[in-house]
Amino acid sequence: MKVIVAKKCGFCPGVRNAISIAEKILTEESNVYSFGPIIHNKDVVEHLAKAGLKTVDSVEEIKAGTVLIRSHGAVPKQIDRLKEKGLKIVDATCVLVKRLQRIASELDADGYKVVVIGDENHPEVQAVVGCAGDVVVIADSSDLHKLPKSGKLGVVCQTTQSPEHFGKMLGAIGRYGFGELKVINTLCKEAIERQESAVKLCKKVDIMFVLGGLESANTRRLAELCKKYNNQTFHLQNWNEFDKLILFGKNIAGVTAGASTPEWIIGEFVKNLEDFDTSSS
Amino acid sequence: MKVIVAKKCGFCPGVRNAISIAEKILTEESNVYSFGPIIHNKDVVEHLAKAGLKTVDSVEEIKAGTVLIRSHGAVPKQIDRLKEKGLKIVDATCVLVKRLQRIASELDADGYKVVVIGDENHPEVQAVVGCAGDVVVIADSSDLHKLPKSGKLGVVCQTTQSPEHFGKMLGAIGRYGFGELKVINTLCKEAIERQESAVKLCKKVDIMFVLGGLESANTRRLAELCKKYNNQTFHLQNWNEFDKLILFGKNIAGVTAGASTPEWIIGEFVKNLEDFDTSSS
Repeated sequence: MKVIVAKKCGFCPGVRNAISIAEKILTEESNVYSFGPIIHNKDVVEHLAKAGLKTVDSVEEIKAGTVLIRSHGAVPKQIDRLKEKGLKIVDATCVLVKRLQRIASELDADGYKVVVIGDENHPEVQAVVGCAGDVVVIADSSDLHKLPKSGKLGVVCQTTQSPEHFGKMLGAIGRYGFGELKVINTLCKEAIERQESAVKLCKKVDIMFVLGGLESANTRRLAELCKKYNNQTFHLQNWNEFDKLILFGKNIAGVTAGASTPEWIIGEFVKNLEDFDTSSS
Repeated sequence: MKVIVAKKCGFCPGVRNAISIAEKILTEESNVYSFGPIIHNKDVVEHLAKAGLKTVDSVEEIKAGTVLIRSHGAVPKQIDRLKEKGLKIVDATCVLVKRLQRIASELDADGYKVVVIGDENHPEVQAVVGCAGDVVVIADSSDLHKLPKSGKLGVVCQTTQSPEHFGKMLGAIGRYGFGELKVINTLCKEAIERQESAVKLCKKVDIMFVLGGLESANTRRLAELCKKYNNQTFHLQNWNEFDKLILFGKNIAGVTAGASTPEWIIGEFVKNLEDFDTSSS
């Protein structure tokens, strides 16, 4: 089968940095924890678990050692609690997520009611919410009722959303009514480049694969965007995960991958796909 | 013919104030000029002309006396030139237009590139442009190319635009790409109430009349909005202006009027319409 890989896909600098920090610490220390999965990719998390990284969900689970703050960041109060327990903190938060946290905190200090456009269940958004006192999270237009129609709103966006969605939501806020908006563009350029590259590719292929963790926001965004232009789009974690029957009758496959999907997963997937004979049954 | 008049229509406080100032000065002084038509309504301008108000288009035309700054405001440099000539200035600029000018000037001083959503040929917008050093006027999405994709944009809107258009343009800027936006809602609530009232009414009638000056931005906006929901919408200056044949076959007419349309024009129009027999030919 013919396979085309998106020009821009896979690891972004933020994810690469988080993994590199984790790998380095694991060679130096024995008791290393990640506060939540270090990135949203099961394969990578399992790989690092074999190297000794213990992933925990609560402060209580950690008794002693070093705690890695994952790429999505953490709520400042939780970091304080980790510090109070005398644990060593190593911050692997993505620099763009850190910037988003700082901006939310500054908007809050400047008297703006902070509005985060994003998914309130995502750890990145939860950490941002923890950085400011008065925050509203809006996912889509159905959440507009949460906003006051007057006063000062400081609007930011989860880094992995698309410019399309960010724009759509600004338009919706504008129509809904407002007093003053200060909007800072907090989108990640790496994520946008992956989106543009994926959309371009998916229009040219019979079937489109988006590789990456099912909880990965940036990978889900890629899959959502591709589905708009190619309904034969599938969001998978890896090659083992799907019924190969869907390949029959297809000639050209497109492959892209989220920012947290390692090269080895993409390589293995592409090789297996290229070797696949779509004419035999 | 049955006629329903929009709940909210006709003179707004800004227009009423400008006319009242003009009428007062005309009783006190003999040499009174308006720098451009005092409001965008020919009938009112003619009425005030009879009372002595001279409407001029350039500073050069005024030798001595008192100059009224019209409801749409004026470019600060022109006001300075009028003052240099020793003329007495009476400012009848609408308070909301004044606020828009002040906000544009403050955004400019704070390092924002000022973006005005509106019609660059309208005197209100031209006056706002004159209040800041670095201004871009965008009417619709085709003007987005004028904007830088980075840096700080200070966005305001011509007071008589609709929330729908303001929101649409904010969405378009968001999709286009930006660094930071500070958006101040400069829409006029009076104009919005007239828009909502007109849209509500036009959906219920066979034919819709929007009364007001053809150059009046707020009246044109009313007509544009009504046309979206009722293609039998007509923007007229007064009763004398249209071919009565369009009334035949219609049972219910709706009437609204811009913020610069006087009560006597609306009253005369409604009376004539009510007296009109749509069954005779």
